Amino acid sequence: MAASSPAATLDVVGIGNAIVDVMSPAENETIERLGMNRGGMTLIDTDRAHALYDAMGPAKEISGGSAANTLAGLASLGSRCAFIGQVADDQLGEVFAHDIRATGIRFDVPARPGEPPTARCLIFVSPDGQRTMNTYLGASQFLPSAALDEALIADARILYLEGYLWDPEEPRAAMKQAIAASRGAGREVAFTLSDAFVIARHGDDFRALIDAGQIDVLFANEHELAALTRMDDFEAGLASLAPRVPTLVVTRSEKGAVAISGGERAEVAAEPIERVVDTTGAGDMFAAGFLHARVAGRPLAECLRAGSICAWEIISHYGARPESDLKALLASKLG
Amino acid sequence: MAASSPAATLDVVGIGNAIVDVMSPAENETIERLGMNRGGMTLIDTDRAHALYDAMGPAKEISGGSAANTLAGLASLGSRCAFIGQVADDQLGEVFAHDIRATGIRFDVPARPGEPPTARCLIFVSPDGQRTMNTYLGASQFLPSAALDEALIADARILYLEGYLWDPEEPRAAMKQAIAASRGAGREVAFTLSDAFVIARHGDDFRALIDAGQIDVLFANEHELAALTRMDDFEAGLASLAPRVPTLVVTRSEKGAVAISGGERAEVAAEPIERVVDTTGAGDMFAAGFLHARVAGRPLAECLRAGSICAWEIISHYGARPESDLKALLASKLG
Repeated sequence: MAASSPAATLDVVGIGNAIVDVMSPAENETIERLGMNRGGMTLIDTDRAHALYDAMGPAKEISGGSAANTLAGLASLGSRCAFIGQVADDQLGEVFAHDIRATGIRFDVPARPGEPPTARCLIFVSPDGQRTMNTYLGASQFLPSAALDEALIADARILYLEGYLWDPEEPRAAMKQAIAASRGAGREVAFTLSDAFVIARHGDDFRALIDAGQIDVLFANEHELAALTRMDDFEAGLASLAPRVPTLVVTRSEKGAVAISGGERAEVAAEPIERVVDTTGAGDMFAAGFLHARVAGRPLAECLRAGSICAWEIISHYGARPESDLKALLASKLG
Repeated sequence: MAASSPAATLDVVGIGNAIVDVMSPAENETIERLGMNRGGMTLIDTDRAHALYDAMGPAKEISGGSAANTLAGLASLGSRCAFIGQVADDQLGEVFAHDIRATGIRFDVPARPGEPPTARCLIFVSPDGQRTMNTYLGASQFLPSAALDEALIADARILYLEGYLWDPEEPRAAMKQAIAASRGAGREVAFTLSDAFVIARHGDDFRALIDAGQIDVLFANEHELAALTRMDDFEAGLASLAPRVPTLVVTRSEKGAVAISGGERAEVAAEPIERVVDTTGAGDMFAAGFLHARVAGRPLAECLRAGSICAWEIISHYGARPESDLKALLASKLG
């Protein structure tokens, strides 16, 4: 952060999809039979959404959305946050708005009247905890640049952006404008690549943003690292990307995570876990722990460890929003 | 069942509120501060629903409704079921209809267009697992007699009715008509008293139904038994009520349950449990286990034990719909 920036009243403002998750356990055979991309995220249209919902077992509705989940984690840790995303003026929109505000996150974007409805993600959770996501974007893809409160963005130490939202046109324009607003105020921009499919479609954009120095903290998992660098070898990918971003954070599921910042490299093992119930939100919650520790000025290794502990909490239960007091959990685990 | 009745193709048809539960953990102080009836069920209007939702933490939406929960348990056990209840033509109505059909239950009542919206129950779950329910009945209270499929009712071995639904006028008339249809076809009528507040308002109706021999199986908890018999002493209440219904089942939470049928008395202890997570649906699932065993012609003590095992499953997790394969659970526990 530039030394000249005025003190921020917010820690993180996030821009992302405003989604309600519809979650149900499913056998692997069902996921295969329905032709889903197991473990991945697939965008679906109205017809496919109806067909998959009809084929889905009894479900639970729990607010989700990648950046929104990260903010929920950050707020649970005590960070001051605001969310920017688009819901429709319907019952699922009310559910999303209620849940994010009830978590203590500022959320002022008005609901969008009429069709399409609020975004939902049909999540099939396999017996091993793997989640297969099918996202109907609905209203979420119509987040207009006009919804951006630039003063709010300038007032947050970190602007956090979700790669998923780079795909639809209106939010992409809004996010570019947000990056300019944040950087203009001397703040930091953190970006999560979200999924290999987004990189397949927008990799050139992302590489250009990175090389133009627009991203201060980049989150990726190892598949996204490979897709972005076009290098299958993990270390080669790291070596290629790390010099181009001030802070690079790469998560590797059960293999832990690596961060490289200003030439320093830190690694963390995954927290030991008895049973993985549902991996939905693991990456989102990792980012929450990492950013919270970063805002608090903690060393790189501790940022990684905080991310790892928060990811551990989320995969131990159903749903992508924290159920424990993350602040107390972190205090007990970090000592 | 009269020996002359033709074979039924359904085991149980249930009539009840079509409700989506909105569940959130809450401290006891919050429940007290908001003036809620801790552990009970309170009907709320639109304004109170908004005020309580605003005060509620981040929540999960899970289909509920007392009789609907019982049917979900029965279907999970392998019973053939149909549900009659009223949702509105909105997103929560779609959620309810999806979940009940995905459980394998026939549900043909068309959604009701326009206002009010689908019923919801705001459930605050205390750290000890106690649930405090605030029900906004919405569309559910407008179940018309016209929605009854009398052929369907005549085709089910048991008609299961929820006392909660006795309160609003239209469903009360529909339930009376359903009792006549069921009895006319030589089937059995099972009734759950649901809550002491319903007995306070409609106790005379219930006593008249019982004394007219309209109810074959009556479910009550000990508070409802006391309210219905106006006797505080448990044994005195039992002794007063048992001779008036063919089968009386009284649940007593951690004290287990008692059933009296045709002069035979059976008792069961509560299943030992490590941690009560959420008591929502315990009575509903007890009824599911009991009725399933009854339909299978099992002895009274085994019906009680099946109820107890199903109640144990539901209080070990969040939400009132079963998450385990109840059939396998029962087989493993009953041997």
